[in-house]
Amino acid sequence: MNFASDNWAGVHPAISDRLTQEANGFSAAYGASKLDKKIEQQFNQLFEREVAVFFVATGTAANSLALAAVNKPGGVTFCHREAHMLEDECGAPEFFTHGARLAPVDGELGKIDPENLIYEIARFPPDFIHAGQPMAISITQATEIGTVYTVDEIRAIAAIAKSKQLPLHMDGARFANALVSLNLTPAEMTWKAGVDIISFGATKNGCWCAEALVFTDPHMAKDLPFIRKRAAQLFSKTRFIASQFDAYLNNDLWLDLARHANTLAQHLCAGITNSNSARLGWKSETNEVFCIIDKTTAEKLRNHGAVFHEWNTPRSLQHLTQDHEILIRLVTSFSTEPAQVDEFVDLLS
Amino acid sequence: MNFASDNWAGVHPAISDRLTQEANGFSAAYGASKLDKKIEQQFNQLFEREVAVFFVATGTAANSLALAAVNKPGGVTFCHREAHMLEDECGAPEFFTHGARLAPVDGELGKIDPENLIYEIARFPPDFIHAGQPMAISITQATEIGTVYTVDEIRAIAAIAKSKQLPLHMDGARFANALVSLNLTPAEMTWKAGVDIISFGATKNGCWCAEALVFTDPHMAKDLPFIRKRAAQLFSKTRFIASQFDAYLNNDLWLDLARHANTLAQHLCAGITNSNSARLGWKSETNEVFCIIDKTTAEKLRNHGAVFHEWNTPRSLQHLTQDHEILIRLVTSFSTEPAQVDEFVDLLS
Amino acid sequence: MNFASDNWAGVHPAISDRLTQEANGFSAAYGASKLDKKIEQQFNQLFEREVAVFFVATGTAANSLALAAVNKPGGVTFCHREAHMLEDECGAPEFFTHGARLAPVDGELGKIDPENLIYEIARFPPDFIHAGQPMAISITQATEIGTVYTVDEIRAIAAIAKSKQLPLHMDGARFANALVSLNLTPAEMTWKAGVDIISFGATKNGCWCAEALVFTDPHMAKDLPFIRKRAAQLFSKTRFIASQFDAYLNNDLWLDLARHANTLAQHLCAGITNSNSARLGWKSETNEVFCIIDKTTAEKLRNHGAVFHEWNTPRSLQHLTQDHEILIRLVTSFSTEPAQVDEFVDLLS
Amino acid sequence: MNFASDNWAGVHPAISDRLTQEANGFSAAYGASKLDKKIEQQFNQLFEREVAVFFVATGTAANSLALAAVNKPGGVTFCHREAHMLEDECGAPEFFTHGARLAPVDGELGKIDPENLIYEIARFPPDFIHAGQPMAISITQATEIGTVYTVDEIRAIAAIAKSKQLPLHMDGARFANALVSLNLTPAEMTWKAGVDIISFGATKNGCWCAEALVFTDPHMAKDLPFIRKRAAQLFSKTRFIASQFDAYLNNDLWLDLARHANTLAQHLCAGITNSNSARLGWKSETNEVFCIIDKTTAEKLRNHGAVFHEWNTPRSLQHLTQDHEILIRLVTSFSTEPAQVDEFVDLLS
Repeated sequence: MNFASDNWAGVHPAISDRLTQEANGFSAAYGASKLDKKIEQQFNQLFEREVAVFFVATGTAANSLALAAVNKPGGVTFCHREAHMLEDECGAPEFFTHGARLAPVDGELGKIDPENLIYEIARFPPDFIHAGQPMAISITQATEIGTVYTVDEIRAIAAIAKSKQLPLHMDGARFANALVSLNLTPAEMTWKAGVDIISFGATKNGCWCAEALVFTDPHMAKDLPFIRKRAAQLFSKTRFIASQFDAYLNNDLWLDLARHANTLAQHLCAGITNSNSARLGWKSETNEVFCIIDKTTAEKLRNHGAVFHEWNTPRSLQHLTQDHEILIRLVTSFSTEPAQVDEFVDLLS
Repeated sequence: MNFASDNWAGVHPAISDRLTQEANGFSAAYGASKLDKKIEQQFNQLFEREVAVFFVATGTAANSLALAAVNKPGGVTFCHREAHMLEDECGAPEFFTHGARLAPVDGELGKIDPENLIYEIARFPPDFIHAGQPMAISITQATEIGTVYTVDEIRAIAAIAKSKQLPLHMDGARFANALVSLNLTPAEMTWKAGVDIISFGATKNGCWCAEALVFTDPHMAKDLPFIRKRAAQLFSKTRFIASQFDAYLNNDLWLDLARHANTLAQHLCAGITNSNSARLGWKSETNEVFCIIDKTTAEKLRNHGAVFHEWNTPRSLQHLTQDHEILIRLVTSFSTEPAQVDEFVDLLS
Repeated sequence: MNFASDNWAGVHPAISDRLTQEANGFSAAYGASKLDKKIEQQFNQLFEREVAVFFVATGTAANSLALAAVNKPGGVTFCHREAHMLEDECGAPEFFTHGARLAPVDGELGKIDPENLIYEIARFPPDFIHAGQPMAISITQATEIGTVYTVDEIRAIAAIAKSKQLPLHMDGARFANALVSLNLTPAEMTWKAGVDIISFGATKNGCWCAEALVFTDPHMAKDLPFIRKRAAQLFSKTRFIASQFDAYLNNDLWLDLARHANTLAQHLCAGITNSNSARLGWKSETNEVFCIIDKTTAEKLRNHGAVFHEWNTPRSLQHLTQDHEILIRLVTSFSTEPAQVDEFVDLLS
Repeated sequence: MNFASDNWAGVHPAISDRLTQEANGFSAAYGASKLDKKIEQQFNQLFEREVAVFFVATGTAANSLALAAVNKPGGVTFCHREAHMLEDECGAPEFFTHGARLAPVDGELGKIDPENLIYEIARFPPDFIHAGQPMAISITQATEIGTVYTVDEIRAIAAIAKSKQLPLHMDGARFANALVSLNLTPAEMTWKAGVDIISFGATKNGCWCAEALVFTDPHMAKDLPFIRKRAAQLFSKTRFIASQFDAYLNNDLWLDLARHANTLAQHLCAGITNSNSARLGWKSETNEVFCIIDKTTAEKLRNHGAVFHEWNTPRSLQHLTQDHEILIRLVTSFSTEPAQVDEFVDLLS
């Protein structure tokens, strides 16, 4: 019963096998091989337009390089207060941008509230150099707390971005989970709704290490080859990433894996809702379930082998829990088995 | 006949298999798993002392993080003029250190000349703030041009480092090739000779992506966990590196692979020496062979399927070649087959 | 009637004269002259202990170099939400620290609330590398909104800093105004209360350009000479700063000038309180007065030659003003004349 | 007899007086005052075109901000091996550009040799990301060793710059000395010869602290207001710089001062040439004279009150001196008196 995180899972056999197939022979290094080119083509098809795609080592790298690509002196990127890049990347976005700032924006359910966004941007009038200058907006899809932006919600943010001539970035560490939750195509969830740059994560959804940074306007990425190399994020044997993506994208494997994880999360939700000893913090829309339980129940679950993280409750949600309670996060993944969910739910009843 | 680079090779089956074994189940992310801890222990044994070890994405990352760990404002690192960090890392060392400088030092056969090193360091008297301040010395073992520092040569550099209280870094992208060439233990080639920090590369010698940054004094690395995370170099599923190292280090596989590559390089050397149409640029001591050939011979070789790079001849070596000649680099690897070498040598005669 | 800012004022004649006296002759550059050494001694006396003092070009430079001196990878500095370094320095603190972050802390009247501070620091548990690591606390004395921390309030913040082993910085752009307001010695307002580093501003209080960065523990500043030079903040003709400080500190001129400004601010306050057409936003304790006036009154004042800035009201204070009102800032300085204040007050009645 | 450096001098009375005139009254801060605007206009006239001009604290700041304005990831700036930015700015150019590199180019008499420049740039083929990418060329006028580039020499460098689409920067710490030496207009010595950006220094030539960064194409400077502010180089009371420039440029004072210094340098040269105990290292063309003297003569001169620096002889010039000799630098300035020169020359005979 391991619900600690989707990055505690290993790798899907089809992906592992595909990687192994590449073990022999020689192939041009640093992204110049035929396989690399083939995967780049595949991203064009996936996004229904010519995109620029860059493989990198981690989701943090993808996010940070995205901002580095649109960097400005005194630049400010607006993101949700609980965004991964703000809370969990140890200042990598600031490091990659030589100190550009992340400005937290509030909003319910892990999503930027457009009105708050307008208010925060308004604090940076053009040419008031003392404050710095807006440089980007970043949304997380799916959010850190398992919710998703609807297309209309993305469009609302994108409209603000466009009106301020700011690029819109999407941290898609759980891109696939959001996509199947909304039943959209990648194009619909991104550039058709106004998103310019995507951190396209595959590691959490069944790969070893496969993160791609996608620019829907390749011109935006013209310096990225240098920026990525300078950031020590250009692998020599790029086959080992390309081949993972090859299997990942083949026959919609990636969507199947995300659907699997989301479905099990819904089972968890149902079990929690029906139990007497736990309740949902809010509605889960992907593969992360947040629930409130008694501390003694939490201990009991752990004693029975359940693995999960207590969640650092944001101030705005502290009213949800009482003193004897904690908020926990349960994450399902491509490798979570239904039996694990059933066992967990049984323990709750 | 692919001699382009050892990073054009794939992965050794034992390493690939070991990785596949890890595909199932759950394991703590971000370096906290049992396997990670086991490999860390193994590095202690390998180096015969307690070391601090950090897995990173690329050799460039290892080198750059090494310098970041010993960073100083206005800092200057002394390395050979043809060092990889100076010539081929797109300014990553400067980026990771927020602008600390690399100072080129001349020396024959790709190795820092101690006298030149003393001269260059002397240009930075203590407290003459205008010049900046020395912060590290870095040597490459094996060098960029296939030679190796003997233990005595390392000791001579280390003595200078110690006298100036500078840490000594070793870029070991081809650590194993140097080690078997010198028939030394890792301890003998590093800290016993005065080396403090090692970029321990395994990617070029049979892994997909396995680079370790090793500090022989763990205290030197006290900020490295933050520095690495901030540089987006902390993988979530660290098993995929740890398991590669597990197979790599098991039963001296790594030494066997390096020996294989070095031996084939010696075969190449012998073939070149015995041929009429090529000559060695200098004595190869590892798995890189530099040879001078006629341009038409080079074309003939390529037409027969040989893959290799023309080498950007350093100014100091331009006398080696005549107008109708070029300097080429031939790299062997764990996956080079003797038949490829034989075929190449046959073409030369 | 110019109340725009104390940096709209010029320079006190005694300071200008002293500077002119230095015009002739030759003197060692880059801080090595006798005058420089004399002023450094004077800072020791001023602070009643051996301090390290560095002249720099701007208050922003002093603040940013202070943080650079205590920089950590993934570092986080806690300051008030309305602190100058967060609101008005265009990301200089982040630039000088290569991306260390400023974390806003709330608190009434421009002052950090200790409880909020504890809460914010608690979000960074030691060794949780994903969040980054606390590196400093910064308070502004006098604050951006004309208030001052009492010694007890400083001690409360310092106790938290000490418990977390964090250095405490004081942005003293209006150090003198705070000092005379509290009737304290520099030692009492700083290190005796737990402050480690001070941006000691003199520009706003009668100099052309004289900012000093003071470390009460010189060891903390051991790299500062390199950091300052690398930041292009080491003047060649340092006499032009040293001589300003010479006059500034002589015979307590600086305290007289600050007292003059504060006194006139109190006159403004009294006039506002007694008028029917304006009211104080909050109690002024130094040389900045914030008052709420009708928009039409503001226009009338401007038409009569009054110069002042409308203040960007923080969200937390937006209840103070009604729709037809604005919050304005009135700043007095060493060169403000009582007649200007009288004229302004008369216009209000 | 002080020939240590032109930055050991004080300030010309006309400049000091003009500064004092500004002491009273109020004036918009941060460069918005009428005086600032007037001086900006004056720079347009001086350069015979619309330029963008920015006041900064130091020559190092001007140089470093110039590079920051044209910064590229993995960028490389080509400058002479003995350029101030490479030898004497403690890594400021690298800091301001987040790690862009300075590549030394050799050339006689302190001047970049065009052939060497072409060779060095050729090491960075477009799109070979491993090496980084050329981003600028910088020349020093007058050079560090008292020589000047002729207009034809500047044009030759500019032609290379243009062919590679690289901006050409001129470090003009001693701009005036070069200008009067060549008897050119500012336009002729800069943009008419292909120079794009100028560090226009006035501090060494009679000001306290007055450095301007000039872009002959204002569009190139579009981000500079943010870059300068973020670098803590935007003064609040900018009048104190603007007023210095006002006097400096008035009635060609600046040219007179430079002529004075250059003339005295020629007197020094003549005296040295005619003496038996010293000889010129090379022909001085501005206000710096390099001469070779016996160590005992040097000591004698110092005992008689002469102040000068021994020069760190570049490797390429070490043949000039014998064991018992040293190379010394003698710098004249606006405030050097003919009697000092005479006294020095007398001591030599």
